[in-house]
Amino acid sequence: MDFHKRNLKMVIAYEGTGYAGFQRQKPGIPTIQETLENAILKITGEEVAIIGAGRTDAGVHASGQVVNFFSDTQLNPDVLKKALNSVLPEDILIKDVIDSPIDFHARFSAKSKTYSYKIYHNQQRPIFERKWVYHYRYALDFELMQQAASLLIGLHDFKCFQAAGSAVKTTIRTINFCTLGKVENEIIIRINADGFLYHMVRNIVGTLLLVGSGKITISDFEDILRSGDRKKAGPTAPARGLCLEEVFYE
Amino acid sequence: MDFHKRNLKMVIAYEGTGYAGFQRQKPGIPTIQETLENAILKITGEEVAIIGAGRTDAGVHASGQVVNFFSDTQLNPDVLKKALNSVLPEDILIKDVIDSPIDFHARFSAKSKTYSYKIYHNQQRPIFERKWVYHYRYALDFELMQQAASLLIGLHDFKCFQAAGSAVKTTIRTINFCTLGKVENEIIIRINADGFLYHMVRNIVGTLLLVGSGKITISDFEDILRSGDRKKAGPTAPARGLCLEEVFYE
Repeated sequence: MDFHKRNLKMVIAYEGTGYAGFQRQKPGIPTIQETLENAILKITGEEVAIIGAGRTDAGVHASGQVVNFFSDTQLNPDVLKKALNSVLPEDILIKDVIDSPIDFHARFSAKSKTYSYKIYHNQQRPIFERKWVYHYRYALDFELMQQAASLLIGLHDFKCFQAAGSAVKTTIRTINFCTLGKVENEIIIRINADGFLYHMVRNIVGTLLLVGSGKITISDFEDILRSGDRKKAGPTAPARGLCLEEVFYE
Repeated sequence: MDFHKRNLKMVIAYEGTGYAGFQRQKPGIPTIQETLENAILKITGEEVAIIGAGRTDAGVHASGQVVNFFSDTQLNPDVLKKALNSVLPEDILIKDVIDSPIDFHARFSAKSKTYSYKIYHNQQRPIFERKWVYHYRYALDFELMQQAASLLIGLHDFKCFQAAGSAVKTTIRTINFCTLGKVENEIIIRINADGFLYHMVRNIVGTLLLVGSGKITISDFEDILRSGDRKKAGPTAPARGLCLEEVFYE
């Protein structure tokens, strides 16, 4: 926090295919954070450290990621947005720039986030959508998946869906909604929660696919949730189907 | 035509971004035709020459291109389809393989073709769709564009929409339908005709955009069509918005 500077919030969309995730890594490894910081340096002359609401993994996309950073720039938000978009690569877009209260923090101020996961459910592989869907060829019982998804709603210990080896204070989270939609060949799973454990959405999707394909029952699914045992839950669904859609603040 | 061989028809989808068009060029220049022929060589051991219904330009896409070729392979259509798809790159897909009468010719037997053209109509540039839409930022009168499009239906001399320097016997074609649809930020123009002149769809789209943006009137549009003068029509819209959707046979 810097009381002499502006606190700029930005809403961002990106196709994550070409990036090693959101968070800055070693020089030479392309990340969303580094690409944004370089664009800001180019336009404002300032070296900033941006904070992202969600630290999306390699290959994960965003249609509504939120970041903030402190700046001395005099540019008005709309001019800054256009200037940044003109120097950013075509797979990253600033959708909005907003002057925010000095204590706004993209991650810690977030009340909830919505992720979507897209499954391309077809015998044939996708062509146009191939970089942001997970291609699944086999039969699925959509209604059973919806039934399992509804069991996730509310306050639960989601330990079974946390990547092995993660260390967080608590694995209890509240899922506000978990919906499944179908548009032509695409199944879209949308999950809103007050917070997400590492790989939580992808592990939930992997486990819902076990239900949908008949490999486990609804009662197995309940047992897995209760057990807190990562080894009992399904595999981690691939990154490419995941998208950070929206971040909610007070 | 080879009466001793099978005549195999294939329905194909591709994202044309990475290719210098459908038609085979010099070695080292990636084309759809060469990529398909190489896949066929790999699976059947045969050097074939495939015939495409539409010779799409560099950067133009297809969701329903049709090709045919003569082959001695003993593989059944479904096995051949799966084998070819397993060796093709992820931006080309064989949707269907069908044994066809010996005189079937993907291009000459075609009765009509449908092309679509997608305009991403928004202030902000597209992220996920960016490779198969034309981004247009300015105001458009959708109803005026529809009115102009309806004037194209029927048998007309479309000389004004033919790329300069083309040599064809006749520039008279029949457009069976020309519809404009809107889905969120996208305007989709679909044109079905018994044949298309070189750059015809892209030049029609460029001229419809002149109408939509108020640069010319409906009556100017009629005059352009009547004049047969390419110089009076609008600019050629970019390749990336164009897609060969379907080819119709008897």
